[in-house]
Amino acid sequence: MSEQTSDETLQQVGEFGLIDRVARMVQQGPAVLLGPGDDAAVIAASDGRVVASTDLLLEGSHFRREWSSAYQVGRKAAAQNLADIAAMGAVPTALLVGLVAPGDLPLTWARDLAAGLADECAPLGASVAGGDTTRGDVLTIAVTALGDLRGRPPVTRSGAHPGDVVAVAGELGWSACGLEFLARGAQADAPEEALRRHRVPRPPYAAGPQAADAGATALIDVSDGLLADVGHIADESGVAIDLDRELVEARVPADMADAALRLGIDPLEWVLTGGEDHALVACFPAEAALPEGWRALGRVEAAGAERGAVTIGGKTWVGVRGWDHFASR
Amino acid sequence: MSEQTSDETLQQVGEFGLIDRVARMVQQGPAVLLGPGDDAAVIAASDGRVVASTDLLLEGSHFRREWSSAYQVGRKAAAQNLADIAAMGAVPTALLVGLVAPGDLPLTWARDLAAGLADECAPLGASVAGGDTTRGDVLTIAVTALGDLRGRPPVTRSGAHPGDVVAVAGELGWSACGLEFLARGAQADAPEEALRRHRVPRPPYAAGPQAADAGATALIDVSDGLLADVGHIADESGVAIDLDRELVEARVPADMADAALRLGIDPLEWVLTGGEDHALVACFPAEAALPEGWRALGRVEAAGAERGAVTIGGKTWVGVRGWDHFASR
Repeated sequence: MSEQTSDETLQQVGEFGLIDRVARMVQQGPAVLLGPGDDAAVIAASDGRVVASTDLLLEGSHFRREWSSAYQVGRKAAAQNLADIAAMGAVPTALLVGLVAPGDLPLTWARDLAAGLADECAPLGASVAGGDTTRGDVLTIAVTALGDLRGRPPVTRSGAHPGDVVAVAGELGWSACGLEFLARGAQADAPEEALRRHRVPRPPYAAGPQAADAGATALIDVSDGLLADVGHIADESGVAIDLDRELVEARVPADMADAALRLGIDPLEWVLTGGEDHALVACFPAEAALPEGWRALGRVEAAGAERGAVTIGGKTWVGVRGWDHFASR
Repeated sequence: MSEQTSDETLQQVGEFGLIDRVARMVQQGPAVLLGPGDDAAVIAASDGRVVASTDLLLEGSHFRREWSSAYQVGRKAAAQNLADIAAMGAVPTALLVGLVAPGDLPLTWARDLAAGLADECAPLGASVAGGDTTRGDVLTIAVTALGDLRGRPPVTRSGAHPGDVVAVAGELGWSACGLEFLARGAQADAPEEALRRHRVPRPPYAAGPQAADAGATALIDVSDGLLADVGHIADESGVAIDLDRELVEARVPADMADAALRLGIDPLEWVLTGGEDHALVACFPAEAALPEGWRALGRVEAAGAERGAVTIGGKTWVGVRGWDHFASR
């Protein structure tokens, strides 16, 4: 096969050409026993169980080619799925990636996407073990992540108990802050960190298994926004959760507060409802020491409180924006 | 939550509503240790390995709502992925399903799709263990299938040896025959079996592990067409394969031959190049007895023949249509 030139499109290379080229780029991780190129991949699941999660990203809804490079889209697509694995207390092992792409997509875009996916996986020992490509009008990325609990019990959303401490690992609000500036066309005024984190979030992957080892009773990754995801724990566990206003405010970095001030926005809006930083939120028994990197945010209320309720200092936050992909816009 | 009414759309119900409703419909199989509703599912992988494959189906390219019901699309989407698991010699355990759907999709369509997915899985002991839904203009289904080798070595495409017998389990050509009549708007003239199999293929799932147990050296499912997929084995194994014209002709059912005659088509075109029946093709050592349900088609040629070549009675089939999703149309 000839070397690619920079202006080749997927249509010219064909599906088999794409799979071949991408598979050759990918360095497989130690858990991949059989990688791309056969009917299916074979991946180690060392303790006899596999953790699996799937997500869809559509151009226009979940990313924009004018705001993010293909490499950044790949990093983010991988990150949001790998974070789901960490949010069970597991270690990621592999991704499977489906790509719907228009025939005129430059081959370099697909190659850079694959590089982004691979680079997000590599530090975790994971890799892209398989995939599918097909032609379609809307650029769409379907990612399935697999992971290994290594003997740990999975930490679900449903085990929080009254008295537990609610804590967070990782960043909150940067992605929403970056999106706000991009959406206003005010990119030049945005804090660098906000643009960077909107394009490539930095989930605290290791904090998932760490929380499991420290006895976390519930664990989730923040994909819908802190309040919404804490609400999922409250709902599934049948408890009420109260966050401490000061502890939440302490999660607003100074540059984020400055940026919010310039836009006349309360930065708590980003921290409480911004959804794509993929921080991890967990509940820990009151007597447990929080592992390194985890910071307390609040507490599971005593039995008798309204099940599923999430408050801040006993009050309901009113500026909440949910993220419901089918809701009327 | 109130009972659904028949004219509700996804937009009205919202993403969380859809996931809730579908998850409640699904009876989980024995391998699903933790089903839908958390950050990820947990699935048994009894021998410390998981087999995983992913596929995309787009409305217009892979199915048409006017030709197939939602239930049939669900059956077929599951079947083509479950067949990939069988084609490694494994037993399916679970599906993860991503659905991109327009906001005006009737809720009943999504519900029937889920029922089709569930019904194709159930006889195998598998189930839909997780998923994602998002709003988009093109109805798209991304399916990832997981499976368990139960201690068997995976049967790849690369192990065929000179002298091996090439054999098939399952049906060939019916799906292409059905598609031909549908594409011509001649549905009323089509054999019932052709329409049925185009809409819901019937992969011989059990034949995969059976072939592995019988010592198969290579195994693939027919998704690109018999010649193309036998060609994948020939390529990956570095061998040439010659099919026997009489044995191939014996795979043409009488009603298919009649239907082809009415259209002035050689039915071998359907059998050799039709891609969606998801039969399984394997190579077996010459001395192995073919397991029940497997029928010989030809032989791996002696060393020295052109690597990757597939012939029929020593000749090259000229009517081949490949299926390359990005090739120019």
